[in-house]
Amino acid sequence: MSVGLDDVRARDAADPLRAYRDRFVVPEGLIYLDGNSLGVLPRATIARQRAVVTEEWGTSLIRSWNDHGWIDAPQRVGAKIARLIGARPHEVIVADSVSVNLFKLIVSAATLSPERPVLLSESGNFHTDLHIASGAAELVPGMRLEVVQRAQLNERIGSDTNLLLLTHVHFKAGYRFDMAEVTARAHAAGARTLWDLSHSVGAVPLHLNRDGAELAVGCGYKYLNGGPGAPAFLYVAEHLQDRLVSPLRGWMGHAAPFAFTDDYVPAPGITRFLAGTPSILALSGLESGVDAFDGVEMDALWAKSIALFDLFAARVAERCPELICISPAEPEHRGSHISFRHPHAFEICQALIADGVIGDFRAPDVIRFGLTPLYLGHEDVWQAVERMRTILESGRWREERFAVRGKVT
Amino acid sequence: MSVGLDDVRARDAADPLRAYRDRFVVPEGLIYLDGNSLGVLPRATIARQRAVVTEEWGTSLIRSWNDHGWIDAPQRVGAKIARLIGARPHEVIVADSVSVNLFKLIVSAATLSPERPVLLSESGNFHTDLHIASGAAELVPGMRLEVVQRAQLNERIGSDTNLLLLTHVHFKAGYRFDMAEVTARAHAAGARTLWDLSHSVGAVPLHLNRDGAELAVGCGYKYLNGGPGAPAFLYVAEHLQDRLVSPLRGWMGHAAPFAFTDDYVPAPGITRFLAGTPSILALSGLESGVDAFDGVEMDALWAKSIALFDLFAARVAERCPELICISPAEPEHRGSHISFRHPHAFEICQALIADGVIGDFRAPDVIRFGLTPLYLGHEDVWQAVERMRTILESGRWREERFAVRGKVT
Repeated sequence: MSVGLDDVRARDAADPLRAYRDRFVVPEGLIYLDGNSLGVLPRATIARQRAVVTEEWGTSLIRSWNDHGWIDAPQRVGAKIARLIGARPHEVIVADSVSVNLFKLIVSAATLSPERPVLLSESGNFHTDLHIASGAAELVPGMRLEVVQRAQLNERIGSDTNLLLLTHVHFKAGYRFDMAEVTARAHAAGARTLWDLSHSVGAVPLHLNRDGAELAVGCGYKYLNGGPGAPAFLYVAEHLQDRLVSPLRGWMGHAAPFAFTDDYVPAPGITRFLAGTPSILALSGLESGVDAFDGVEMDALWAKSIALFDLFAARVAERCPELICISPAEPEHRGSHISFRHPHAFEICQALIADGVIGDFRAPDVIRFGLTPLYLGHEDVWQAVERMRTILESGRWREERFAVRGKVT
Repeated sequence: MSVGLDDVRARDAADPLRAYRDRFVVPEGLIYLDGNSLGVLPRATIARQRAVVTEEWGTSLIRSWNDHGWIDAPQRVGAKIARLIGARPHEVIVADSVSVNLFKLIVSAATLSPERPVLLSESGNFHTDLHIASGAAELVPGMRLEVVQRAQLNERIGSDTNLLLLTHVHFKAGYRFDMAEVTARAHAAGARTLWDLSHSVGAVPLHLNRDGAELAVGCGYKYLNGGPGAPAFLYVAEHLQDRLVSPLRGWMGHAAPFAFTDDYVPAPGITRFLAGTPSILALSGLESGVDAFDGVEMDALWAKSIALFDLFAARVAERCPELICISPAEPEHRGSHISFRHPHAFEICQALIADGVIGDFRAPDVIRFGLTPLYLGHEDVWQAVERMRTILESGRWREERFAVRGKVT
């Protein structure tokens, strides 16, 4: 049965998360389906950034490290993220980028169990994960990276597996691993897991402790709305924290950074995974983003994501059947974005952007739409599909200007 | 001959850099002698941060990577820093932290010449440099870190030296290496040099190309006024760029980051030293800081630094003789800060802060004052010494509250 505009408006009116949209700046007239690439600006961030710049930095200057809690920000924001991923507050810390954090955890886990030489991942994993792993494998004596198809992963996990590096929700099609099942399988073989939560955190249910996960990293600028290039976070299960030593021994991870001693003594707990001095402008942006989840239950968020996805898929099947959905139909196997294949995905994506519907092109032929349950409504989805229908029907995406590529595409 | 208040005011009135102070927020009543720990807020940063947050992020969202030049910011800001350090624009890039950048350069240089097993540094070097080097040395097969006294460095450089890791201006006493001489000595032995410019850049003359330096890193939040924890930069001489591969193979250093391929292909030139996605809030803060040097000649800056230092040293010798200056008397051997030893340095520093004179305590017994030539005046220095004189004379630093330590001291 076809869903009409009145239907979706009624759904939005009944949406228990509706009020949260007001916490964000969603530009008028824009349908922003790219919150899994760069989350929108939380309203509270504007005043907060101004205060950090003019009051904390501008007026209190160096004293803010103590007086405004700058020095504890990595742990404080980490603890807030912990609630969103099913971890304990002292198991998460904000630091560096996803890439750099992957390196820290891969190298430290590899050197902890040198008798197990294989870092195992899947081909088509987000490429920075594979590249970082290949760099780490070349450095750690005896270690090697093996990259196999997803279907071969289970049979490949064995007694030589050191670490299984997987992205929980795939950046392209949105396939999701069953974290509990995969982790149990790795454990049965004596291996550990390292999860990249970049396309999960802030939208998809996560229970790291319950599922037995030992190591994870995640992105601050997607569903967490921390700002462009926001710092990342990392998670280390409590029982592993004091057994791992970061290869990046920066002073912020030292047990006594202000003692200025030649010898390196790692800080106890999660703090040892800090490296250099963190950007406070960046960290406070992330903190505001995470604070926008105050009072939000993850289960309600996920229910909304399912509703948006199902509506999107049904409307595209009806209105734009030339687009082939490549995301999993079953909610338990997917994330919070929906992707379609089309030979002219790039041009269609550009034409949509020109029409105020922001999605993402992912090479070679995928259009990806992020369905951020915290600030999107059913009508956004409905209207987006209508605009896509217009573009396809008119053939307007064939205009030359839509074939021009920027540096970031 | 004693220098009076009228004298210093006359010097300020004649100071050709005087007008630049207006580019910065210098809080009323505060004498801020800690710009080498955290530089002050440039006025232009306030509006720029607001625009980045509300317009670029808030309104243009993901499109800003192309439309507002976010994707090129690391190279663009690096090129601006190049002018300040005597390098070519394509030899400098902004990325990560000093710690993380040290790791990239140490590991890539070490693996380039594996037949030379020694990373050589001096004891008492800034500790994050030594810690990062020790972590790198443990990872690279056959490599080892040797840390010797400064007086032993010259004789220790030999055919087994891979890399000489030195901080150009020492963070504590302010001793400065002769970059040309040390680099020539390293080259004569077939070794390379890696300079940490954190306490030099933005105040002390630097001529990396002229002096034959191959590798360097530097801090964005000290004399560059980039904001708390601002991103760092790194320099790789052109002839070495394509011979080094970063151990941190993040996607931003890939030749084609948006092709999403499993295989790692390093970008040509300096871009390969990027790792993950950079924080744009942090980067734009640094860009504003660097832009505040527009029109400023480095030689004029250094002449001013010399004048402030000499005034400070002379006034302390006259008014506070119980403080022992440990910084070099000759300008060519020092940086832009002045340090004194006193058994109660910590308490005196705290009492000064309470009195509106911000310096730094450095364990165990040093007070350090940063003399930032871009925004400090002769009267600032004069008044700071007078306030110190009052504190010493009255013994007020003995009050209990001045012995209380914060987390950052």
